[in-house]
Amino acid sequence: MERKKISVIGAGFTGATTAFIAAAKELGDIVLVDIPQSESPTKGKALDMQEATPVLGVDARITGTSNYEDTKGSDIVIITAGIARKPGMSRDDLVKTNQKVMAAVTRDIVKHSPDCTIIVLTNPVDAMTYTVYKESGLPKNRVIGQSGVLDTARFRTFVAEELGLSVKDVQGFVLGGHGDDMVPLIRYSSVGGVPLTDLIEQEKIDSIIERTRKGGAEIVNLLGNGSAYYAPAAALVQMAEAILKDQKRVLPSIAYLEGEYGYDGLYLGVPTVLGTDGIEKIIELELTDDERKQLDKSRDSVISVMNVLK
Amino acid sequence: MERKKISVIGAGFTGATTAFIAAAKELGDIVLVDIPQSESPTKGKALDMQEATPVLGVDARITGTSNYEDTKGSDIVIITAGIARKPGMSRDDLVKTNQKVMAAVTRDIVKHSPDCTIIVLTNPVDAMTYTVYKESGLPKNRVIGQSGVLDTARFRTFVAEELGLSVKDVQGFVLGGHGDDMVPLIRYSSVGGVPLTDLIEQEKIDSIIERTRKGGAEIVNLLGNGSAYYAPAAALVQMAEAILKDQKRVLPSIAYLEGEYGYDGLYLGVPTVLGTDGIEKIIELELTDDERKQLDKSRDSVISVMNVLK
Amino acid sequence: MERKKISVIGAGFTGATTAFIAAAKELGDIVLVDIPQSESPTKGKALDMQEATPVLGVDARITGTSNYEDTKGSDIVIITAGIARKPGMSRDDLVKTNQKVMAAVTRDIVKHSPDCTIIVLTNPVDAMTYTVYKESGLPKNRVIGQSGVLDTARFRTFVAEELGLSVKDVQGFVLGGHGDDMVPLIRYSSVGGVPLTDLIEQEKIDSIIERTRKGGAEIVNLLGNGSAYYAPAAALVQMAEAILKDQKRVLPSIAYLEGEYGYDGLYLGVPTVLGTDGIEKIIELELTDDERKQLDKSRDSVISVMNVLK
Amino acid sequence: MERKKISVIGAGFTGATTAFIAAAKELGDIVLVDIPQSESPTKGKALDMQEATPVLGVDARITGTSNYEDTKGSDIVIITAGIARKPGMSRDDLVKTNQKVMAAVTRDIVKHSPDCTIIVLTNPVDAMTYTVYKESGLPKNRVIGQSGVLDTARFRTFVAEELGLSVKDVQGFVLGGHGDDMVPLIRYSSVGGVPLTDLIEQEKIDSIIERTRKGGAEIVNLLGNGSAYYAPAAALVQMAEAILKDQKRVLPSIAYLEGEYGYDGLYLGVPTVLGTDGIEKIIELELTDDERKQLDKSRDSVISVMNVLK
Repeated sequence: MERKKISVIGAGFTGATTAFIAAAKELGDIVLVDIPQSESPTKGKALDMQEATPVLGVDARITGTSNYEDTKGSDIVIITAGIARKPGMSRDDLVKTNQKVMAAVTRDIVKHSPDCTIIVLTNPVDAMTYTVYKESGLPKNRVIGQSGVLDTARFRTFVAEELGLSVKDVQGFVLGGHGDDMVPLIRYSSVGGVPLTDLIEQEKIDSIIERTRKGGAEIVNLLGNGSAYYAPAAALVQMAEAILKDQKRVLPSIAYLEGEYGYDGLYLGVPTVLGTDGIEKIIELELTDDERKQLDKSRDSVISVMNVLK
Repeated sequence: MERKKISVIGAGFTGATTAFIAAAKELGDIVLVDIPQSESPTKGKALDMQEATPVLGVDARITGTSNYEDTKGSDIVIITAGIARKPGMSRDDLVKTNQKVMAAVTRDIVKHSPDCTIIVLTNPVDAMTYTVYKESGLPKNRVIGQSGVLDTARFRTFVAEELGLSVKDVQGFVLGGHGDDMVPLIRYSSVGGVPLTDLIEQEKIDSIIERTRKGGAEIVNLLGNGSAYYAPAAALVQMAEAILKDQKRVLPSIAYLEGEYGYDGLYLGVPTVLGTDGIEKIIELELTDDERKQLDKSRDSVISVMNVLK
Repeated sequence: MERKKISVIGAGFTGATTAFIAAAKELGDIVLVDIPQSESPTKGKALDMQEATPVLGVDARITGTSNYEDTKGSDIVIITAGIARKPGMSRDDLVKTNQKVMAAVTRDIVKHSPDCTIIVLTNPVDAMTYTVYKESGLPKNRVIGQSGVLDTARFRTFVAEELGLSVKDVQGFVLGGHGDDMVPLIRYSSVGGVPLTDLIEQEKIDSIIERTRKGGAEIVNLLGNGSAYYAPAAALVQMAEAILKDQKRVLPSIAYLEGEYGYDGLYLGVPTVLGTDGIEKIIELELTDDERKQLDKSRDSVISVMNVLK
Repeated sequence: MERKKISVIGAGFTGATTAFIAAAKELGDIVLVDIPQSESPTKGKALDMQEATPVLGVDARITGTSNYEDTKGSDIVIITAGIARKPGMSRDDLVKTNQKVMAAVTRDIVKHSPDCTIIVLTNPVDAMTYTVYKESGLPKNRVIGQSGVLDTARFRTFVAEELGLSVKDVQGFVLGGHGDDMVPLIRYSSVGGVPLTDLIEQEKIDSIIERTRKGGAEIVNLLGNGSAYYAPAAALVQMAEAILKDQKRVLPSIAYLEGEYGYDGLYLGVPTVLGTDGIEKIIELELTDDERKQLDKSRDSVISVMNVLK
């Protein structure tokens, strides 16, 4: 019955915000990890969060470190480390750089927490989750990528805003990859159970889908310098909470497919059940021809990135 | 910016549990009201709850009383008062008795809180909500009946149990009256967005619907003496919270219809938007022929009870 | 990382309310146990609570049963079973009856959950906790009685009411037995850190202490039929939460003393640290002569009840 | 019963984190304001937070803007704007620069929210709160500075860590100014009611006090670039919540003194009651000679900064 332990790799905005939300929810003790050169600011962020705990009324030890020994025995490890694509950088360079980062951090993670579940945020997330899976030696259900919870959150936000209704009652549903490769299943989206198509005209729905696809870029453009971190962090914590509390949540995850949806040997965004064993089930849906076509395109996109890994 | 004030009429199990949940959520100060003969136990329950507040970590004054002056300036008034149908009692006798109770408490409520919103639980709830509406002189959006949130909660519980999944991800949807007159809209029910019909076979869905219809009776039979109060109380508090916090929740309510769904001059369960103005909107859906037929039957049932009121 | 399991023995008002609060806080799955003759209403209460979970937004399985096999593998077991003292019943008869109840339920508990921690509420609580300890064979730190959290909650309530201030900022402190045998340490009571004696005159403090001592009786008198259950249930859940989440809370518990405070071989209310190992520490305080005298009296009272056990 | 409205002036780390915590607690709608040159990133942060709300399960509109019209009708306005002291900058230059910022933003705030309560974080906070008070024309109880909640939080963190106990049970108490001018009242500090001096030896307490005094600098040194924002933001939200929910919390605030503690015409950190009217009461304590001496020193320090304002 000891406290749960959650390690967050990468202490940038997303990693730090993930750590903070998890601590504020009293999900367990938190270890925030970054490279040795950033150890001092990582410790500073952790201490600052720790000093917030009496006011928030939560008990959680928050540790900043560059030493993976501090992550020993983690129940969940969340990877936010890696670089973002910079102007002039080719996609292949991004993939190769982050692949190296993933390989290195994964070795350090599993060395100290051989029974943990890993959630990956680093982009391109399908290929990076695959890299972590291969490097970790963990069973496939224990290596999970995040993208659908965030995409759905954005979709739900835009729908709630359009209708002036509570976000609590808006359901969204996406398959496939992140961003441009996202496959929205509008027929599975609803507000308080009422199909979206009964409430918003198709043209407006199309523009909401388009805005969702470009949701990451919209934030990047507004910030000018940097990318989204509040919603991604909240999404990561929701997935971690579902696993830590064995909630059997039905959430979209990037899961390793072995035959599901007719694909094999790759990570792709599909509806899953998250509980104590990580991805406890992949839910398979009948797709329309159009949806299948979009999902195939998403799959092709993932494979083209995976080819860079070789 | 003073604290919100919520009065609960009737300090039986449902009323007391409603008061307790609302206090535990720190929604505001609570006044629990019962008849003079029950004033002492009502004060006892309120004091006991008050003594729980330091442990729960919430600030809420909880008052037990038989004096309506204590309800002065309430934002929300929840009516749980009235008698339950006893063996050998005719439906008409139940209706007439509770009509008198509604009329009496409504006069006392509006005298001291002329700007409140009233939520009615007392059965038969459609007719009792109508009685309160007529007696109160309040605008129709400020007099609301509860039944659909509870029916949906039971439906969601049974579906989640059947599938072994989180209740958080199960959506249900009902129209019409309570219990036997409930009109379930299965095509609007889903799990994490996935249509129920993709996940559970029709026969099982039918048995879940039937169990939901008889949900109140199932609890009555198990308890042997008394009826459900935990889930009804939670449902009442959810509706009150949506209004107090102006959440614009999409929840089923018993609303006064003036043309919506083709009906006029009666209270019936329909999807609504709950916010600071009470029922801020009634959502109208296209119904199938079968659903329309069931809803007509539900309407007929309500009217037959209303005729007893005359 | 599976869900925690909390069993509550006794499905009366206190047991049921304890189960409900624990479920509403999503502390784990709940098993509510009563005798075979009460199995049906116990199942009814559990089902009613279960049907509240979708509205409360929590995932918790709630089971009503008379079969202790359902409690298998519990992390925490809370005992609320036993009879209350009735008019004309001698104290010794109460003790002997509840001793038999404790012995019987304890055997059933440890048979199925040999590694659990037990929290006892049944009166007279010091002697009943001792009985459970002896019968269970569990280490002393895993058998704990509740009284001080409730007494302190009442004291805090009355102080907050007197001053018109938040209960969140009122600290109270008691030692010794429940009710008349309570030893209040006013010098350790404060509001936002300010000593109580700086804020309330001694005469008023004395009357608050007296009201706290008689707090149980005040509720009994008001209810007319029955005793307090909301605040006792909240107190039990707070102790269980401290243990389940390994919070290292400093809370008053009825603990087995072996030398602490100069006493040996009995259970008495003292300040403790509650964490994953149950009572992880007993905090010893320097007492004034007067406090020592009161505590000796409390000890004598406990021993006189324990003598009935032989 | 419409939603509360909270405006946060300054969209840097502290302002943004304050907005996020307030939204996550569903305290109301949030307006995050920064200068026109930063409007785009301010909108980006607000949108990113908005997109987190479906996952957090809260209803709150979050607006990023540089237009004070958007703050119209705010219940609470929190000022985090202003510059931090840079190497080589004299204290007087800092004071003069931030005084101009305070004057400008205050005019814009009260123009659109003449009935709001303002909480000030900007340093040097005593003098800046005074500036806002004078410029705003608001009653003194509606202009409040933050420092004691943060200082106490740090103190509580270090005590809890030293003892390995829950932060929930550690009470701290400070008077006077922020940082070096802080006056700790150790005799009012306790753990679960037990005086700190019974639990930790004086030498260690002294080092904890010293660490608390330098708490801001400790974070600055660790971060290398920037200063604390998680704990300050949490402190601001706690004060705002106490006011918005009329909690009558006993919290240390920077309050305008007119005779209290023997001082007149300046803002200084004292224990206060926070409720719907802002500072509803200043609690006066008997001080020891040594505490009085330290408080006089703190007062002198505030006055020396105020002299720069002329």
